[in-house]
Amino acid sequence: MHTLPTALHMDRTEPLSDKTQAYFDLCKEKLGLVPNVLLAYSFDETKLRAFTDMYNDLMLAKSGLSKLEREMIAVAVSSVNRCFYCLTAHGAAVRELSGDPKLGELMVMNYRVADLSARHRAMLDFAVKLTERPAEILEGDREGLREAGFTDRDIWDIASVAAFFNMTNRVAAAVDMRPNDEYHSMAR
Amino acid sequence: MHTLPTALHMDRTEPLSDKTQAYFDLCKEKLGLVPNVLLAYSFDETKLRAFTDMYNDLMLAKSGLSKLEREMIAVAVSSVNRCFYCLTAHGAAVRELSGDPKLGELMVMNYRVADLSARHRAMLDFAVKLTERPAEILEGDREGLREAGFTDRDIWDIASVAAFFNMTNRVAAAVDMRPNDEYHSMAR
Amino acid sequence: MHTLPTALHMDRTEPLSDKTQAYFDLCKEKLGLVPNVLLAYSFDETKLRAFTDMYNDLMLAKSGLSKLEREMIAVAVSSVNRCFYCLTAHGAAVRELSGDPKLGELMVMNYRVADLSARHRAMLDFAVKLTERPAEILEGDREGLREAGFTDRDIWDIASVAAFFNMTNRVAAAVDMRPNDEYHSMAR
Amino acid sequence: MHTLPTALHMDRTEPLSDKTQAYFDLCKEKLGLVPNVLLAYSFDETKLRAFTDMYNDLMLAKSGLSKLEREMIAVAVSSVNRCFYCLTAHGAAVRELSGDPKLGELMVMNYRVADLSARHRAMLDFAVKLTERPAEILEGDREGLREAGFTDRDIWDIASVAAFFNMTNRVAAAVDMRPNDEYHSMAR
Amino acid sequence: MHTLPTALHMDRTEPLSDKTQAYFDLCKEKLGLVPNVLLAYSFDETKLRAFTDMYNDLMLAKSGLSKLEREMIAVAVSSVNRCFYCLTAHGAAVRELSGDPKLGELMVMNYRVADLSARHRAMLDFAVKLTERPAEILEGDREGLREAGFTDRDIWDIASVAAFFNMTNRVAAAVDMRPNDEYHSMAR
Amino acid sequence: MHTLPTALHMDRTEPLSDKTQAYFDLCKEKLGLVPNVLLAYSFDETKLRAFTDMYNDLMLAKSGLSKLEREMIAVAVSSVNRCFYCLTAHGAAVRELSGDPKLGELMVMNYRVADLSARHRAMLDFAVKLTERPAEILEGDREGLREAGFTDRDIWDIASVAAFFNMTNRVAAAVDMRPNDEYHSMAR
Repeated sequence: MHTLPTALHMDRTEPLSDKTQAYFDLCKEKLGLVPNVLLAYSFDETKLRAFTDMYNDLMLAKSGLSKLEREMIAVAVSSVNRCFYCLTAHGAAVRELSGDPKLGELMVMNYRVADLSARHRAMLDFAVKLTERPAEILEGDREGLREAGFTDRDIWDIASVAAFFNMTNRVAAAVDMRPNDEYHSMAR
Repeated sequence: MHTLPTALHMDRTEPLSDKTQAYFDLCKEKLGLVPNVLLAYSFDETKLRAFTDMYNDLMLAKSGLSKLEREMIAVAVSSVNRCFYCLTAHGAAVRELSGDPKLGELMVMNYRVADLSARHRAMLDFAVKLTERPAEILEGDREGLREAGFTDRDIWDIASVAAFFNMTNRVAAAVDMRPNDEYHSMAR
Repeated sequence: MHTLPTALHMDRTEPLSDKTQAYFDLCKEKLGLVPNVLLAYSFDETKLRAFTDMYNDLMLAKSGLSKLEREMIAVAVSSVNRCFYCLTAHGAAVRELSGDPKLGELMVMNYRVADLSARHRAMLDFAVKLTERPAEILEGDREGLREAGFTDRDIWDIASVAAFFNMTNRVAAAVDMRPNDEYHSMAR
Repeated sequence: MHTLPTALHMDRTEPLSDKTQAYFDLCKEKLGLVPNVLLAYSFDETKLRAFTDMYNDLMLAKSGLSKLEREMIAVAVSSVNRCFYCLTAHGAAVRELSGDPKLGELMVMNYRVADLSARHRAMLDFAVKLTERPAEILEGDREGLREAGFTDRDIWDIASVAAFFNMTNRVAAAVDMRPNDEYHSMAR
Repeated sequence: MHTLPTALHMDRTEPLSDKTQAYFDLCKEKLGLVPNVLLAYSFDETKLRAFTDMYNDLMLAKSGLSKLEREMIAVAVSSVNRCFYCLTAHGAAVRELSGDPKLGELMVMNYRVADLSARHRAMLDFAVKLTERPAEILEGDREGLREAGFTDRDIWDIASVAAFFNMTNRVAAAVDMRPNDEYHSMAR
Repeated sequence: MHTLPTALHMDRTEPLSDKTQAYFDLCKEKLGLVPNVLLAYSFDETKLRAFTDMYNDLMLAKSGLSKLEREMIAVAVSSVNRCFYCLTAHGAAVRELSGDPKLGELMVMNYRVADLSARHRAMLDFAVKLTERPAEILEGDREGLREAGFTDRDIWDIASVAAFFNMTNRVAAAVDMRPNDEYHSMAR
């Protein structure tokens, strides 16, 4: 039996399925760890699979946004919501994918003062406004993304990634999900 | 070719798969309509399936929360975010599941002034705080849910439903998703 | 003796005057009900008359704003303040005067995503800014209304209606005023 | 013809009625000035009368609240809304009625740090919460006033005065109403 | 032994040094009083000197900003933070340096509705944004000051004065520092 | 001539005095770098000295607060204000003084979810409330610190450190002050 990395008094009551065990083994091989968010969801494999299917499509599938851009959105959104888990895990991803530790810190601390391209500023301004004041997103905001060179399909992806982290930030906050300690020193 | 019910200039470029068509037919049969959110996602069946898998698990699977309770959370969260799509579609669901049109209106307008049981007030206060100030959720908030009779497993579900609507509210806002007109007059 | 439709432990201690009774009879005849706000004020006929004199002048007297426009302001303001009473009663009025149930819902839920004329958008943007951040209203805001075609006399009326609902929303909230149930199903 | 003390390009087009002229003469005699708010409304005597009827009933009629208490509420509310007109005119009234210039300044600047009785703190906390977050007023807030010694009839009056200044603050802001200069040096 | 003009149970345990006594005597001679902030800091002469050195440099040394302009910034910032001490002491300074009591009141109540030059509006808008939303200050904000005629050296001074009052407002709030009563009637 | 590490077009026009040069040499020897904030202030040695005198007294002098506690306050305050300079430099200090890299990250990201002693939680809650809502600090807040074991003299120090970073955060934001790159990898 495994205590989950959250503040909830919940345990996994059944052994992992072979498929999930294989997925966790793959994580360990490729990342050096099984992200705690996967362990947190592992008490129910249906929920775990729904989470990873959506996550993997959004963050890893083909898109007009690079993987680094998607991680930048993840961190800028998580900074608004002050999510310790996501800032830690995805801050490491920005450092790693960009090879620029300072960029990771800027996304965590205040993306506005980073020296960003017009494309990246427009992308993050949209993601952060969508996070802070979703009711005030109007056609002018979409128009701004188009002027910065994004297609309407890209807008869908920016919106979907920003929205997804507004979900996971809140799951993490609600259950006090704890990131793997290894992230803190990665790619510094 | 089908224009999607959003402000994005995107179309579905391929016919629906048989599986998806069958799902839409089932919706039409059971609900009298295909919810526009499904059409909005239908330009990419992987994304559509990730969305429906998560949605159906959260809102319809076995849980310590009744379906009505999950819909009440959906509407209270969507009211904070002022999401026209979700308030319309899930407001109708609250009216229908409760048989109490006034309860639906109260969830849309101001859940705080509704005449709620201690259980429902604790549940909605948590969901709304998680929406407005996720960084301030602490053990005391979880403790409050336990004192209102919720198990830790229930807390996961409250958190997950509230978090999910924080995602969909923002996808809907970002793309100006439009609800089916039929919802407005349902169960009044 | 009559218990008033509020949370205050207050009753009307004297019978209604003939004049007030006649007014209530007229309401019943024309609207099918006596609005609960009138009953709430009926414990003191001086206060009731001061309220109805101001209300009737603002909402019904000759103005550059149509009655529907005034009701749209009423609902958009009440949405900011999340006033259950006013959203219910004046949401019904918007549905009825416009013959467009969806318009009523949009005013309740999020006027910004409604498909509004430039005139109506300017009018509601001003009313909502005046509600949320009155200290920041400057000449540029008035100028914006003039550019949208409003006269300075119209600006007075927009301001007065928006300000009035900022008052009544707060009286209703303070005493937990309850709207007549009949409004919920009207003009759906 | 008289230019009104606001930023609107509006003038009074007819001479004042005898009744209104007499009222203004009385103001001049008793206060040493005609408050600019009355001049601002004087372009339409129906609106002027609706305003003064409500104002005089709320601020001067018999009530469980003293006139000073009602003026303290007026200023604390106007401080939240940063209304130059009302802070000036009613700040002077607090100084005059209390004989305590510092009390007037405290109401303008930050009522919370004033050395207040429990009764006055409860009264102002309620008025300010009603101003800032009307949607969050619940039975517990009313209960707090009762515990501080207020009757339910007093609660109506606290609410009505606080709500009224939420109206007038916004009319003044919308039209840039200017207070009479004489107020600044009164009762210092 | 001297009780300090704050809510802290702290006393000065040693007599003032000759140098500090001479400074206080000078204050009494020139201002008619020893500002309570100096007494509050007098329990530790190192802290007192650090405070006065910084204050005197910022507010009195040669600068592209006049002394009145620096005091206007002080009051506009203190108004955002609702600091009773600083609004009282520096409100008096604005009245005195400008010879315009109304200007002092406008800075306390709502600088936005004052009839300001473009230079002063740009200066105060920057100071207030820096107070309310420092994370959102970008190059465009600095550019705005340059367009209003400020040098980069002036921008440093605007920033430093605004920032300093964000410090002192909070020290005053934290210890409930009380201003000398004499300020209230000065220069009215 | 030296370009300063800010966005202002300002240069140091005179060579550093011997005393300042010696101070900078000492920094380089002990810290391995001259903190950019000192270079930023070096255009005017009076301002530089006023800054360092206050900083050194607050952060390094004898106090009931440990140096680590003062750095924790610095970072928690800077996190509210999202100050890239101070989060970077003082985040490094927390990591170094505590020997706990995760503690530094928690202060930057969300101190509330850190596993803190009651003393540290009370200290940081006060510092953050003083940062966010200084006008609402009341005797109860000071009482809370006393109950957590702080003396009134300690309260002065908590307040002074929190207030100081509210100043420096804003100077840094106003001039876009850039931290030395070396901080990012220190004590990870």
